[in-house]
Amino acid sequence: MTEFRSVAAATGEPQGEPFAVHGPADVAAACAAAEAAFDTYRATSREDRAAFLERIADEIMAIGDSLIDAYLSESGLPRMRAEGERGRTCGQLRMFADVVRKGQWQQLRIDPALPERQPLPRPDLRLRMIPVGPVAVFGASNFPLAFSTAGGDTASALAAGCPVVVKGHPAHPITGSLIAQAISTAVAACGLPEGVFQHLVGPSNDLGAALVQDPRIMAVGFTGSRAGGLALARLAQAREVPIPVYAEMSSINPVLLLPEALKARGEALGAAFVGSLTMGAGQFCTNPGLVLAIEGEGLDAFVAAATGAVSEAKPQTMLTTGIAAAYAKGVEALSGTAGVETLAKGEEGNRTCGGAILFQTTAAKFLADKAIGDEVFGSASVIVRCKDEAELKAVLEGLEGQLTATLHMDEADEAAASRLLPVLERKVGRILANGWPTGVEVCHAMVHGGPFPATSDPRTTSVGSMAIDRFLRPVSYQNLAQPVLPPELRDDAYGDGAPRLIDGTLTLS
Amino acid sequence: MTEFRSVAAATGEPQGEPFAVHGPADVAAACAAAEAAFDTYRATSREDRAAFLERIADEIMAIGDSLIDAYLSESGLPRMRAEGERGRTCGQLRMFADVVRKGQWQQLRIDPALPERQPLPRPDLRLRMIPVGPVAVFGASNFPLAFSTAGGDTASALAAGCPVVVKGHPAHPITGSLIAQAISTAVAACGLPEGVFQHLVGPSNDLGAALVQDPRIMAVGFTGSRAGGLALARLAQAREVPIPVYAEMSSINPVLLLPEALKARGEALGAAFVGSLTMGAGQFCTNPGLVLAIEGEGLDAFVAAATGAVSEAKPQTMLTTGIAAAYAKGVEALSGTAGVETLAKGEEGNRTCGGAILFQTTAAKFLADKAIGDEVFGSASVIVRCKDEAELKAVLEGLEGQLTATLHMDEADEAAASRLLPVLERKVGRILANGWPTGVEVCHAMVHGGPFPATSDPRTTSVGSMAIDRFLRPVSYQNLAQPVLPPELRDDAYGDGAPRLIDGTLTLS
Repeated sequence: MTEFRSVAAATGEPQGEPFAVHGPADVAAACAAAEAAFDTYRATSREDRAAFLERIADEIMAIGDSLIDAYLSESGLPRMRAEGERGRTCGQLRMFADVVRKGQWQQLRIDPALPERQPLPRPDLRLRMIPVGPVAVFGASNFPLAFSTAGGDTASALAAGCPVVVKGHPAHPITGSLIAQAISTAVAACGLPEGVFQHLVGPSNDLGAALVQDPRIMAVGFTGSRAGGLALARLAQAREVPIPVYAEMSSINPVLLLPEALKARGEALGAAFVGSLTMGAGQFCTNPGLVLAIEGEGLDAFVAAATGAVSEAKPQTMLTTGIAAAYAKGVEALSGTAGVETLAKGEEGNRTCGGAILFQTTAAKFLADKAIGDEVFGSASVIVRCKDEAELKAVLEGLEGQLTATLHMDEADEAAASRLLPVLERKVGRILANGWPTGVEVCHAMVHGGPFPATSDPRTTSVGSMAIDRFLRPVSYQNLAQPVLPPELRDDAYGDGAPRLIDGTLTLS
Repeated sequence: MTEFRSVAAATGEPQGEPFAVHGPADVAAACAAAEAAFDTYRATSREDRAAFLERIADEIMAIGDSLIDAYLSESGLPRMRAEGERGRTCGQLRMFADVVRKGQWQQLRIDPALPERQPLPRPDLRLRMIPVGPVAVFGASNFPLAFSTAGGDTASALAAGCPVVVKGHPAHPITGSLIAQAISTAVAACGLPEGVFQHLVGPSNDLGAALVQDPRIMAVGFTGSRAGGLALARLAQAREVPIPVYAEMSSINPVLLLPEALKARGEALGAAFVGSLTMGAGQFCTNPGLVLAIEGEGLDAFVAAATGAVSEAKPQTMLTTGIAAAYAKGVEALSGTAGVETLAKGEEGNRTCGGAILFQTTAAKFLADKAIGDEVFGSASVIVRCKDEAELKAVLEGLEGQLTATLHMDEADEAAASRLLPVLERKVGRILANGWPTGVEVCHAMVHGGPFPATSDPRTTSVGSMAIDRFLRPVSYQNLAQPVLPPELRDDAYGDGAPRLIDGTLTLS
């Protein structure tokens, strides 16, 4: 295949002009250009790099309505979401600009020489973080802007000083190409080498495999399926020089309804839950696919309200016909699982749409059949009825790693929440109270990550400013003369606004 | 085999009482105890954990001369080294105590709620690092104290709040057991659960494999051979839940003699180089196994001095007969390599001793035969004669990842050094000038790490205070009530001495 076309989510039919399919030669050329651009790009000043990130945001806004139109037709998502996601995408670029300017990411450390120390003098040692090299970013289908071509992975890698080669998601080539053009315009406007950003597209997995295997790529950012993330991680491990893959994969995001909250507002929680479950056709990494609660009147009220809301839910256009088919298959498997009861179904989906569905099972059954906990990407969720807190805790302990866990709780539930917290901390990256896991704030204290298989690397996050750390590594400089030291480690750089750990004591510049 | 004995390095003969060989049941019991101790241990206050680390140092010093005697007989290394290494081991425990007290490792981040924000309010988000869980540490043969039972990996994992299960190196079971006893005494004295620290011994690789495969182990620290590190990394990747392996493996630590320095003091550099090469029988990860220089009179003087010094070198006891045999084999391979000239040999080694040897080749030959760059663990080094700076740079670019690179340079070499620095930064973890790579300072700005295969994970260091980061992962807390939040994230913890990133601005408490 040498060409492919965009597909309208609502109809499943091709639309627009064909795109050339990129192949191995394009991957090699892109990686060579990224490698060639690396030393120039990483030597940019904090101010220049920040201005570049802001320029990308400006260029994205300058695309105007054609970007929103492409987003809408390619994703099937609503306009408010498209505009919100564009705002989030530009906002995170600006946040990283701010992070780059402040300079804490450099983790500067200086241990001055101690020439008189006995029995041996201490040399002068200085440390900074440097970018790892060219980074491959895989666009995600479910966030055509915020987790795709100019999404969080791209923004954090560029902020770290890494050239980026994006493998655009084939579900939104028009959106991706518009964004790629905006970034390339910013690259040129800022006088940077072209290789700082490149965009490859194509419908086959071979393109991504070739990218991960290219020896010039030094790290990978990915958001997508478990199978896809694990395949990339295997390729990355099998390289002559293995590289890290930051894959954000699968999560069913347990929601815990603690007894007092459930007693006080079971019905309201049930309705709100379905709102989170069906938002965006349930196509969020943080979609609440599992509800855990202890038997009682409150749970009955929750179930009744949730059942009612799901029954009234309309089918929604899914991102691709492939995702709609996978969703239907997952729903079918759960529907046919012994011990899993179908509580409610919304209006039936079709080739392009998914309908909501709600299941119920017991803790004993859930513990006995791990497959009930497999992610079904879409508006499907399972309520697990537990006899008591001990059983609820056992279900939690048996879960795989997750992105989030949610506690619905009142003041009288605080003791129970404190007992559960140590278990939750080991299972998830983010613990939230009295809200819903969908809706991930882009800020400094966000962790969008978590133990395997939620991600391939729980030491990091893919959303929020801490994401920059994924693309950095430390280098130590011992007794280097001032003119040879990197500028930020020279004595005359003190006062440049970046914090420094001097002899173990953190000092603000 | 159910028992094994210590072996005296100098004679290769067994000594002392037999040790019980630990097996799979011991691994399972140790990991269960570590898991059981985790939540208690990680909840210790910064002060309590720091006091525990200091207590370990005190208990190690309290062992007295029997520790030094065991070290000397098991390692064959000299007394000054034994005492220095003990000091370093205790010093790094005290350094981590200081780091734990200061609290920066927690990376506290707080983004306060913005209830009035449009279009959506921002929730309250708080982040801290938590320890990953029980850690397996593999003792290294070449540092029976500083990289072994109570070495850097153990100290940094305990500092992070992780229980540690050590697989003691079979080359020094007496030393390891004395240290293990000291740590267990500190555990008891501090009122901590026994599972916080455990020590397993045995001569086979199966023990270590079982440890890495135990599902309760969440990270691995290793210093040793490339084959050993890669084998552990493969096991860790094949687990149901893959875990990080921090393996510090092989490095030949290029030393670059820049033209003006070489011209000014080629002879003195040659003599000093052999001092670094033969120290501790060359059994350092940072031993200078490769010298790169441009042809000329200065290089001739360097070679003449180094040749003279190596010729006069006496053989030295190696750590084990296995290491001595591997060294002899590596030397034989290099001696028989076409295009590699043997410049000088010290007095011949034997079953327990290694003799020094110096080789020479050309850049063209080195570039054509990658095997010349394989690590030979011991007092062997290869001088690579380059025609010019371009050829020297090509040799550098062809090297695998390394722990260190050393520049010998004068002021007039600074321009050349600056041209080479970007290449060096991508190849190594530490760049030093006008010294020798052996001798790794334990401090805050140290990086003892580097690109593959120097280590399996160049994002970290195994020496220095930054090593604590290897055993931590971030967790985010959203809208949690104050009593449920971890203590250090509550409002009333401000002023506890730990820095916090508040709304993106770093504030010292």
